[in-house]
Amino acid sequence: MLLPHVLLTPGPLTTSLATRTAMLKDWGSWDGDFNALTASVCADLLAIANGQATHCCIPLQGSGTFAVEAAIGTLVPKQGKLLVLANGAYGERMANIAKVMGRELSVLCWADGVPVDVAAVAAALQADAAITHVGVIHCETATGLLNPLAQIAAVVAAAGRELIVDAMSSFGALDIDLATMPICAVIAASGKCLEGVPGMGFVIAKKSAIENASGNSASLALDLADQYAYLQRTGQWRFTPPTHVVAALRAAIDQYQLEGGRAVRLARYQANANALIDALSRAGLQLFLAPELQAPIILTFHAPAHADYRFITFYNAMRERGFVLYPGKLTAVETFRVGCIGAIDAATLQQAAHAIVDVLIELGWL
Amino acid sequence: MLLPHVLLTPGPLTTSLATRTAMLKDWGSWDGDFNALTASVCADLLAIANGQATHCCIPLQGSGTFAVEAAIGTLVPKQGKLLVLANGAYGERMANIAKVMGRELSVLCWADGVPVDVAAVAAALQADAAITHVGVIHCETATGLLNPLAQIAAVVAAAGRELIVDAMSSFGALDIDLATMPICAVIAASGKCLEGVPGMGFVIAKKSAIENASGNSASLALDLADQYAYLQRTGQWRFTPPTHVVAALRAAIDQYQLEGGRAVRLARYQANANALIDALSRAGLQLFLAPELQAPIILTFHAPAHADYRFITFYNAMRERGFVLYPGKLTAVETFRVGCIGAIDAATLQQAAHAIVDVLIELGWL
Ligand SMILES: Cc1ncc(COP(=O)(O)O)c(C=O)c1O
Ligand SMILES: Cc1ncc(COP(=O)(O)O)c(C=O)c1O
Repeated sequence: MLLPHVLLTPGPLTTSLATRTAMLKDWGSWDGDFNALTASVCADLLAIANGQATHCCIPLQGSGTFAVEAAIGTLVPKQGKLLVLANGAYGERMANIAKVMGRELSVLCWADGVPVDVAAVAAALQADAAITHVGVIHCETATGLLNPLAQIAAVVAAAGRELIVDAMSSFGALDIDLATMPICAVIAASGKCLEGVPGMGFVIAKKSAIENASGNSASLALDLADQYAYLQRTGQWRFTPPTHVVAALRAAIDQYQLEGGRAVRLARYQANANALIDALSRAGLQLFLAPELQAPIILTFHAPAHADYRFITFYNAMRERGFVLYPGKLTAVETFRVGCIGAIDAATLQQAAHAIVDVLIELGWL
Repeated sequence: MLLPHVLLTPGPLTTSLATRTAMLKDWGSWDGDFNALTASVCADLLAIANGQATHCCIPLQGSGTFAVEAAIGTLVPKQGKLLVLANGAYGERMANIAKVMGRELSVLCWADGVPVDVAAVAAALQADAAITHVGVIHCETATGLLNPLAQIAAVVAAAGRELIVDAMSSFGALDIDLATMPICAVIAASGKCLEGVPGMGFVIAKKSAIENASGNSASLALDLADQYAYLQRTGQWRFTPPTHVVAALRAAIDQYQLEGGRAVRLARYQANANALIDALSRAGLQLFLAPELQAPIILTFHAPAHADYRFITFYNAMRERGFVLYPGKLTAVETFRVGCIGAIDAATLQQAAHAIVDVLIELGWL
């Protein structure tokens, strides 16, 4: 491979050269220029979710999981109780985060590939008055399933509880409208649909919630109320920011806006997904999810039903052809995943589909 | 300014072009090449501290503070007690971290600029059998003071307790020899004396300690025992790594080794510090610390004794000349700080000193 590999993985993903070259400059973290960079990134992230009137954007160092933990630890009071709606590995991780930090917790589980059932959520909230917050994964990256966010938000609000949404793999592409959906906090990261590089997360939280959250966190590093107060007072992050990652995200958002924003990005991802689904289903490979549940973010396919199939062999052969895939994240069935997000278009996904089919035929598995 | 600014700040700092261009490639976090990158970085960091026989290196997403919190939360058991030796803002931060996470805590304090008194540490350990761990800052970046690490380690070991060292601003330049100094854990980050970009920390921990630390952490994201076990099993970070930051650190370590390693890097920083001290003291500006306590990492100078002095005006004028300084971090006296670390040499520090003197004369403050 002389050309770089195309990452068909949902973060880290393939970024544009413009995004990467934005990292060629060093920034002082105390400097006015860097404060302006932080402020502009946060303002634009907030606007993407239409949260300017009610919410604020708090950036956080680390990976997306750090931001999920920070949101739960800061927004759910020590005497609160979290209900997690889990239909995949990331829902289970959210529950695990709450468990490890010792928050009262209840979990509603669905099988992989089964969307959150809104009536069951309403019943659970009715049955347990101790629940103060509900946590859900918008796009469950473990399968690629899109949960019915607007309905969940409505049911949680009707029950007078607060909703925390892990929108890691959906933010910037799928619809999250804070002006119409009653949501307490949305969590995402630099290196997903915004097409930045990994290294920071952010939480878009209701201002009233974050202003009342002081003292909740049992972590200094992950205390979003403290991070927000400091940012408001000084324009700076509390601790050394990942300056180059922030600069790359600024460049990535510039390109996002130039491309036409959320609707256009979603359309590109949908075209990417369609190209892959069309080509692979013609070759007899089947999607794991029912089409109406599938978000155009990451696609889970059943592995070919051949006794010798090994993902690592398939992975290595695809890598030789220039494409990096993702393993399945399901325990019950053998699957592989292909990301549709990143600085790639439908032509790339068509090439990837051809390579997948070629490789599987060559290996004798198709 | 057409040329980029020189950052005279102790992280983020001025990096080399070779380090920054290492960020022009995207990496898949599941890929063998990236696992090899992580493994080689960790092996080299471990070797810098001479810890290969006894310790392991655990990388962590986020800023240095995240790694400090992770080390305390993972290594000090819930029933343990931490004694923090504090003679500046970073010592106080370590104490605050333990307090927020609810660990039993005791703090020995010295004034800014007064080194840790080893006899007092011995007495405190003798007086309180509940103390299991001692935390100290190697180079207290708030002033630039070097604490007597070897002596502290000896006293803590003699009392049968474990030592946790925040070596954020010293690692890679000042002497930390795990083969001769009894130290449980050393904490540092990518963007300091190793001259990488900010975005990850790491903890070099005694293998026996980390292997016994499972279940201590009340945080999933900051659980080093879990991070280590996963890394051992899979070669991968548990959560999305800051891939570009890791690649930049690899490039930075390559340059570190080419330059000649720790002794040569320290000599360069010492020459940088000397150049600045010579020029500024000739102009009548005084170091805050006694010379024998001063590490050649960051220098704290008394501000000129002029009633109109304002750091921000000085900062902006220096920035116009191409140099980014750091504010003082002391409450009792007005100071400013100049970093000696980064991809800069004595000639740069001479130019910076000239600019400082010129600017202060121009402003009428010298
Ligand atoms: C839905 C979801 N939540 C959380 C995460 C965790 O993010 P990270 O790996 O950056 O910690 C991911 C990562 O892909 C995700 O897709
Ligand atoms: C001694 C020391 N400890 C901790 C930190 C905190 O590191 P960070 O700002 O990366 O969180 C610093 C930062 O300069 C430091 O110098």
